[in-house]
Parts: sequence; structure tokens; C-alpha cells
Amino acid sequence: MATIIKNEEYKYIFSPYLEPVARITPGNEVIVYTEDAFKSRIKTEADIPSKALATVRFLNPQTGPIYIEGAEPGDTLKVEIQDIELTRDYAVSCFLKHFGGLHLEERLEEKVWIWRLVENRQYLYNEEIRVKIPVRPFYGTFGVAPEIEAISTMSPGPFGGNMDVPDITAGNTVYLPVYNKGALFYMGDCHAAQGEGELCGVACEITAKATIKFDLIKGKKIAWPRIESKDKIMAVGSARPMEDAARIAYAELLAWLAEDYGFTKAEAYELLTQVGGLYVGNMVDTSYSLVASIHKRYLQRIDA
Amino acid sequence: MATIIKNEEYKYIFSPYLEPVARITPGNEVIVYTEDAFKSRIKTEADIPSKALATVRFLNPQTGPIYIEGAEPGDTLKVEIQDIELTRDYAVSCFLKHFGGLHLEERLEEKVWIWRLVENRQYLYNEEIRVKIPVRPFYGTFGVAPEIEAISTMSPGPFGGNMDVPDITAGNTVYLPVYNKGALFYMGDCHAAQGEGELCGVACEITAKATIKFDLIKGKKIAWPRIESKDKIMAVGSARPMEDAARIAYAELLAWLAEDYGFTKAEAYELLTQVGGLYVGNMVDTSYSLVASIHKRYLQRIDA
Amino acid sequence: MATIIKNEEYKYIFSPYLEPVARITPGNEVIVYTEDAFKSRIKTEADIPSKALATVRFLNPQTGPIYIEGAEPGDTLKVEIQDIELTRDYAVSCFLKHFGGLHLEERLEEKVWIWRLVENRQYLYNEEIRVKIPVRPFYGTFGVAPEIEAISTMSPGPFGGNMDVPDITAGNTVYLPVYNKGALFYMGDCHAAQGEGELCGVACEITAKATIKFDLIKGKKIAWPRIESKDKIMAVGSARPMEDAARIAYAELLAWLAEDYGFTKAEAYELLTQVGGLYVGNMVDTSYSLVASIHKRYLQRIDA
Amino acid sequence: MATIIKNEEYKYIFSPYLEPVARITPGNEVIVYTEDAFKSRIKTEADIPSKALATVRFLNPQTGPIYIEGAEPGDTLKVEIQDIELTRDYAVSCFLKHFGGLHLEERLEEKVWIWRLVENRQYLYNEEIRVKIPVRPFYGTFGVAPEIEAISTMSPGPFGGNMDVPDITAGNTVYLPVYNKGALFYMGDCHAAQGEGELCGVACEITAKATIKFDLIKGKKIAWPRIESKDKIMAVGSARPMEDAARIAYAELLAWLAEDYGFTKAEAYELLTQVGGLYVGNMVDTSYSLVASIHKRYLQRIDA
Repeated sequence: MATIIKNEEYKYIFSPYLEPVARITPGNEVIVYTEDAFKSRIKTEADIPSKALATVRFLNPQTGPIYIEGAEPGDTLKVEIQDIELTRDYAVSCFLKHFGGLHLEERLEEKVWIWRLVENRQYLYNEEIRVKIPVRPFYGTFGVAPEIEAISTMSPGPFGGNMDVPDITAGNTVYLPVYNKGALFYMGDCHAAQGEGELCGVACEITAKATIKFDLIKGKKIAWPRIESKDKIMAVGSARPMEDAARIAYAELLAWLAEDYGFTKAEAYELLTQVGGLYVGNMVDTSYSLVASIHKRYLQRIDA
Repeated sequence: MATIIKNEEYKYIFSPYLEPVARITPGNEVIVYTEDAFKSRIKTEADIPSKALATVRFLNPQTGPIYIEGAEPGDTLKVEIQDIELTRDYAVSCFLKHFGGLHLEERLEEKVWIWRLVENRQYLYNEEIRVKIPVRPFYGTFGVAPEIEAISTMSPGPFGGNMDVPDITAGNTVYLPVYNKGALFYMGDCHAAQGEGELCGVACEITAKATIKFDLIKGKKIAWPRIESKDKIMAVGSARPMEDAARIAYAELLAWLAEDYGFTKAEAYELLTQVGGLYVGNMVDTSYSLVASIHKRYLQRIDA
Repeated sequence: MATIIKNEEYKYIFSPYLEPVARITPGNEVIVYTEDAFKSRIKTEADIPSKALATVRFLNPQTGPIYIEGAEPGDTLKVEIQDIELTRDYAVSCFLKHFGGLHLEERLEEKVWIWRLVENRQYLYNEEIRVKIPVRPFYGTFGVAPEIEAISTMSPGPFGGNMDVPDITAGNTVYLPVYNKGALFYMGDCHAAQGEGELCGVACEITAKATIKFDLIKGKKIAWPRIESKDKIMAVGSARPMEDAARIAYAELLAWLAEDYGFTKAEAYELLTQVGGLYVGNMVDTSYSLVASIHKRYLQRIDA
Repeated sequence: MATIIKNEEYKYIFSPYLEPVARITPGNEVIVYTEDAFKSRIKTEADIPSKALATVRFLNPQTGPIYIEGAEPGDTLKVEIQDIELTRDYAVSCFLKHFGGLHLEERLEEKVWIWRLVENRQYLYNEEIRVKIPVRPFYGTFGVAPEIEAISTMSPGPFGGNMDVPDITAGNTVYLPVYNKGALFYMGDCHAAQGEGELCGVACEITAKATIKFDLIKGKKIAWPRIESKDKIMAVGSARPMEDAARIAYAELLAWLAEDYGFTKAEAYELLTQVGGLYVGNMVDTSYSLVASIHKRYLQRIDA
């Protein structure tokens, strides 16, 4: 039977200094409830973000930390995302003051956009834009506590965190480095949909409930988060300027090819040059996150 | 009947000061032959790049400039790529000294990789890596002469140039700003395949022959290259650091949505936030090139 | 009589979660002993950094946190540096593997450089280079605990931290934002000398003893560290890419001119354009630190 | 007797394709007249930049190209600046739309600032700000034609160009790489004063007359501009992001120390770490320019 985890008090740092909210044995199913990035303080087009958030000290509340039994520094934490269920019937996006990926000539006013779940919750629809977009939920924030630092939940890093990459989604497995006993896992910030880059800085923010399963790869060290889908293996790099995030992501993926798939570094470098994928997860956070990927079909050696 | 254009002397700058090699009336089919980025000086694994290129002053030879009749500053040049035919049976990649997207701990030696066209020219195969990858040819370099500058063919910019974005491919239409009478179009640097980022800096370089058709949109000004495929509209931004390329690409795409698709800037900004695509074309050139995109299905207004 | 502060256990994070090592009433003199960045583990040219540091988990030990009585969030902490005394007769620099500001063609081997204090401790001399340079001691690391984050002592930020800017020196006053009750001040990483940029990543590292005096400006909020010398006022910005650090530093200095010197923002912007100073403190840390400055003589209005 | 050079038609590109306006034998004195960056189109506070410049296609007019007899690719051009005389009694700065180093919360309106030469032309005074600043004239733009590119006079690069670094001033010598027969030298954009960074993007722009002397170092190759003053040797790097400009500047200065001053690369790297200077020339141009320097006193070996 799945353990259900719901924070009473949400967390705003990825910290090794906080008391775990649950202790989980690897292999068991866990159901985690998460708040949206604004802790549901913005609900309608009539809400003015700067007012609704006026007394708010921090954004992006996380559920956790979750203690994984047996996890030790130097292991890799494997998190299978089995299912994401959205727990309300609308998502919220908005333009915030002094925030966002573009510096437009005319500064846009702050404004709330409500995207309603429609057509059996398969689509989102905004009544002003009048465009229908598919629901593709994923977790914007997903990570473990750093070794000794406590980092804002607005930030991504080697520990994961606020990466905002759409591949952290149901059906995929996320690998994270373990820095602390118990790993101390956090998640939150579900997006019902988000484009690459999360351009205005606010995706389709929504409350949600995830079914996940933890596992450990004992004694396996990775440097940055890795993701596996049915078809692809991927690595996430987060840094500024953006080219450094690109280099980190590809270097981590190259390491993966060399470690687990029998390629020399030279072969991996050449192969990724010809068939690698590289998209921008976010271009608005404190560091930018990019995802490098390779399709599994290219990981097979074939004799001529 | 198509005009055939083959340079006797290749060009190494996108320049408004060079004599056109051909004058083309919009609407006619044109066949353009292009050399590979090394002017075919590297042919086998036994070639050592630093020796093969020792006496070479410039790389990335271009065919052009092609004068388009009727083109004037302030117009947009439309280039339909109808077909790309590879004109030899292998492509060349290599590791060059002091070049490439990663700074690896062990510096890799210079080395040539030959990718042979196999299986009815549908795939590329390298005998050392023993991996088969699909042939997906496109033009790495595609652009017009800048207004008064003459720019190296190693560089991308608002005029197009060495963008290395895989969407400049058969079936797609590329839009370029016209700065000079006759537009003065150049193309070259065909890649039989290339991953996003062109990681080591050298894709599957190959000689080719393209069938293209020029058209003009009189009096239509665009700021950066745009691309249209069957499914998507896209814009290319080139800059350093990479986040500036991302901002340029999305700003140009936002402008396109506002100009031609009836969205307000605010609507376009919000829509691109939720469904925009953003991939890295190259992370090795003098400026980085990113492609922002939106699927055409999201350009339709739908009443609830 | 001055309070003497010496850590038993050095700190490797700027953290609001650590127990103060001392409580100081503003206005009193305090003497703070600091370790060098390597905790004195490198002492001679014969030490090999990768061996000497092999079992070391963290670098850059700090003395603190020091609790300042009466400090509250929203105040500004004023720290007068009255004196810096070097507490040994040599400073240590070294080349570390995979670290430093330049990517040189030939990678330099790791290597220790010992700089001896000579000529009545006024100069440093290295026997291999045979060049004499003046002793100009300053604190590389100087800051307060962030609001809720705990940040590595390798990093600079709005809270100060590992800025490596030579103007944090005797005779100058440093202003820091207060985020926590008691401010929670940390310092360390004395440099007997350092060029702008700290090019190889390791300055003339040395143990030291500082005489400082704390004061509070109640209810005064600043966004980034400010420095005042006899002649100049300065602001420090830390970020990546480096241009963002430059913008932060100048924006903070502009704010200072507007708040305290009676200039409109437009006047301040224009004045800084014509007489502002802008140097690079470091180009090797996790974020780069730049210092914007203006000479006090330009803060006087003069009638024509 | 000095040759006097005054352009009839100013140039807006650093180009190898333009006819020289004069041919000069090295060693002779030359007097060069230069226009201001706006070609004197802005003269009073009543001028509105966007109107005054409405029909202007290009900014930053240059005098040149000047052909230096005997200069060949691979040489170094040495330019001694003997004197700079300002040729009018006021300098012009302004805020332009969509330009400048800061993104301020309230966008500043476009506005002209007139700085009058006062006190025997030793100072500049603005009547609105009522601050007096010293006249410290230098050339913002100073360079040679690139090898095959023609580059906008808004841009800096290895060829020099629009560097905006205050050390290109009377009493100093500037060294530039020669790419073309005759070197093809250009100069312009005199600033009566400018702070480091040229924050708002427009310094104290003024017309001027320089007395310079050319010399050649035959067969000496340098990669980026170098400057020598009475006290210091310096190198200028121009790139984006700014950290790349910093690396270029220091790498060129390190090369200089290794070539001409008998230091090993390791010694030079260490020495620059402890005593190098690094300031920002400009943070507003198409690439940023930084100046790395070392005082000549540190170039002397001294036995203990």
C-alpha cells in the first residue's frame, strides 16, 4: 500500500537541516501531494499578483524532505514517476513585475491567465487567448538536499531543484546524486503545461498528486541529474551563462555513454555531435537549465 | 528550366561588395551546388586535419552571391528548399585542435571520422563507432549580404549565415531580411546529419546540390531569419551569451505571432510560455544560434 | 578592551543555522583571527596541492558567525576595518588542477608558489619569479548569513561572501544588508596581495588578525555590499555572466548616489557614465565580483 | 612637417575594401582630424536624439583608412599618440532609447547632456548636474582593417575598433596587428571624458585633432591590441560574455610577458594573479572591451 505524503508546512529551501516528513523504504509506492508555485494564492483573473503575493516571503513551496532508507552519500537516487494527477480544474499563469525571459519594448502590465482543464482534462483552454493546448503535466522542481548548503527552491543545481524541464514527467525515471544520509528528497511546482524556456517565467501552475517509486543505486556517483524515458536518456545542466548549462548537460550525458554503454569518450563525443538533442528547459530561473539527450536507438552497435 | 549555379571561386565572406555569380528572377527553380566546409580537403581517416588544412586561409566556402531580381532593402527574401541531394557517398566529421563545445579533462587528439552513406543513402554508418544514424541533410550556412559589413562565413547573424540549425532543410521555407539591392544570397556547408548543438564543432560535412525557389515579400521587414515547416513556424536568434540568442529567437517569433496571426503581444508571450519550443542549433560558432518555434495547431483560435 | 574572536571550528557555509561564536555590542572594537583558504595545509613548494587537499571536504574556512546585538532584518551592518595584521611570514599561492581564469594551450601543472614577507613585511618576494610586490592585505571573504539559504564559503552574493575584492581592506568601511536577527557576520580568506581578477584562482593566501568595529544603520536597506574608502564610494555586484555583475554593481552605486547624495537617477546615471570606475575583483569564483566606484570629489555640486 | 588628414567622407566600417585617404611613411608625424560619434548632429539640450538622428544610417564616423607604407600582414603597427586637442568647447552625452548599460526600473527618457569645457579647458561642467570633472581625452575607436571582413565602426575586435578604453590617450602607444598591406588604419570617436564601462553608452563625445606617429615592428605578430604607457603595459580583449573579454585580455598580456620580458608562462600567470589590473572599458558595445595591465615595476627581476 502506498504511503501518502502531504506537507503541513511547505519548505522553501533544499536543505540538509530540515526534519524529514516521511521515511520511505526503497521499492515502495509513494503518493506525494504538492502545492502550486504560489501556494494557491492566485486563483482568478481578478487577482493582482503584486497584491496577492504582497505579504509572501517565499515562492515555490516544496513537499519534503523525504528520507529514503539506506541512502548514503555517493549513491544515486532513482525516482520513477508512475503517475501525475492534477488536483484542481484550472492552472494559473501570470506576468509578474520585473520578471520574465524577454525585455519587451513596451513593458507588459502584470496580469493573471487562467487555463481551465477541458475535454476530459486532456486540454487547457484560456478564454481570452482562445487557444487549446494539451495537458502535459510535469514537476518543475525535483531534487535532493545539497551536501552542506541550503538552497532556495527558486534555484536549480547539481542536486536537481527548480529545473523546469518538461521531461520530469510520468513514465520517466529521474536519477539524482545523493549527498546526505537518507537523500532528503523534495518535490513540487507541478506544471500542467510549459513550453521550452518557460518564457514569461510562469508556466501553467497547478496543484497535483504524484505516484512515485524510489530506488537506490548503491555506490554509483553521478554529477548532475539524469533522466530516462522509454526512448531516450538525458542529462540536465544548470548554470549561467546558458552555454555553461549546455556544456554541463552534454558532458554528463557523454559520461553516461562512456560509463554504461561501452563507448569511448571520443566515440561518445562524435556520436552526440551527430544525433544529440539539446533543448532549453528554462531561461528565467536563477540558473538556466538545459537538457541534452540521445535516442536509445543510437546506443546499439551494429555491424556493417 | 532550372538555372544551375556552381561557383568557380568560393566565397568566405557574406559581403555586399562581391560580384553576383548569377541573377535570378523570383519564382524560378534554381539548382545550387555547394562544397563542404573543408572544400573537400579531408577525405579519409588517414588525413590529419591540422596538416590537411595547414595552408588553408579560410573555411566554410559558400556558393554565391546570387542576385534576386527586384529585391530591395526592406523586403523579405523567401527561399523554399525543395530538395537536397548529397553528391558523394560519405560525409566527414573530425576533432580539430582548440575547437569544440566541451572542455574535456583529457584533451582529445585530432581525428577524422568518416560516415558512409548506406542502405540506399538513407543512413550514415561509421565503422569505428558502429552506429547507424539517419541521413537528415540541411544547410549549415544560408544567408544574405549584410548592409555594409562583410562578415566571415564562420559567423551567423541577423542576415542568417552560419547558423547550423537543422530546420534549414528540404520542405521548409526560410525567410531572410533584405539589406541590399538584389538581396545577394549565399549558401553552403551542407550537413548530412547533425545533432542539436553540433557538439564537437564538425557535423557530417558533405558536398550537395539543392533545388530552391526564391520569392520576395515586398515591403515586409523582418529582423532575424524565420523558418516555416509544414507544422511549425520558427525564428532563429544568434548571439553570445546563449541566453541572448534565446531572447532574440523568442522575440522574433513573438513579433511574427503579433504581425501575422492576430495575437496581441501579451497573448503571444503567454502562449509561447506554455507551448513554445527552443532548441540549440549550435554552441560552437562565433555566436550561438537557437531556434524558437510554435506548432501551427496553436495558431488557431477556438471558441470554447 | 577589544573582544578577541578565534574559531575553534571553522565554518564552510554562510548560514543562518549556526550558533554564534560571539555576541558583540555595536561600537566596540573586535579582533578577529582568520585561517587561510587552505586552513594552512599548504606550506612549502614541496607540497602537492592535490595531495595536501586530498582528504579535505571544503575550502575557505571562516571565522564566525558573530552576532551583532540589536541587528535586525532590514538594517545595514557597517563594518569598519581598522587594521589587518598578517600572522605569519609567508603567503601561499598555487595552481590547482581544473581551476583558474585562463584556458591555456599547454595545461600548467599544479604547483605551489611561496611568497615571503620581506623588507620589514612591506613586500612579498618569490624566489623563483624573483619579483618583489607590495603587501596590500585584504579580506577575500566578508559577509553575513543569507535570509534562509546556507551558501558555500566559495560563493559571493548580495550577502557579501567570497567576493575577493581588494577594497575590503584596512581604512575602509564595508556595508552589508542584514537578513537575520544579530546579522550573523563571517570573515576569512585574507590575501596578502591579489591582482584584479585573481587570475589563477589563488591569491597570496595568509593567516591574519583584523581589528574591526561594527555599527548598525537601523532601518536602512541596501541590496548589495557597499564600501567606503577615504576617497571613494563603491558597490560590489556578483553574478554570471560578468556583465550582470557589472550591471548590479553600477545599479547599486547609482541607488546610493540617489539616496544619499541628492542626485536624481538620471543625473547619477550620467555622472557615473563619465567618471565611474569599474574593475574586476574576481573572475574565478562561482559568481564573478565587480566593483563600481566614484571618487568623492564628484559628489560635490559646484556652481559655475 | 606633419601630414594633415581630414576625411571628406567619413567611414562607417573597418574595411579592407576602401581607398586610402592618405599614405604615410613610418616615423613621420601625422595630424588627424576626427568627427564626434554623432557627426556633430547633436549640439544642444534642445536636440532630441531620436529626431536629430532620425535619417542617420550609421553612427561613429571614422577618419581613414590611412595606408602605412611598408606594412604587411604579420607585422605589428605601432601608433604613438603624441597629443589630443579638442576642437570645440563642449562635449555631448545623451540617453538614447533602447540603449545603455543598465535596465532601470523606470525607463529614463531620451535626453541630451552638454558638458562645457571650463577653467582653461581643463574641466568639463554640466549646468544641470553642477559637477566638474577633469578633461581626460582619448579615442574611443582606433584600429585597422580586418583581413577579409568589413566590420561596423560600432564594434571592437582583435583589429581594435570601437574599444572605448580610456588608455588610448596622449602619451601612450597602441600596438595593432596588421592584416593587410598598408595596415589601413582608422580612428575616431574622441571622448573628452569617460568612466570605466561607459555606463549609459554615450561618453563626452567631441570633435578632436590628434598628433600621432606610426611605426612598424616587422614580422612581429600579436593577436589583440596592446597599449604601453609610461608606467604600464596593457592588453585589450573584446568579446561576449564579458568573462571571455577578461580571458582574452589577460591571455594576450601573459603572452607579452612571456615573449618580451623573459618570464615563463607559469611565472607570468602567477605574477598577473598577484599584481594584474583588470578594468572594464565598455559594457555597452556589440562586444565588451576589458583592459588587463601590469605595472612596469613588476617586470624587473630582483635578487633577494
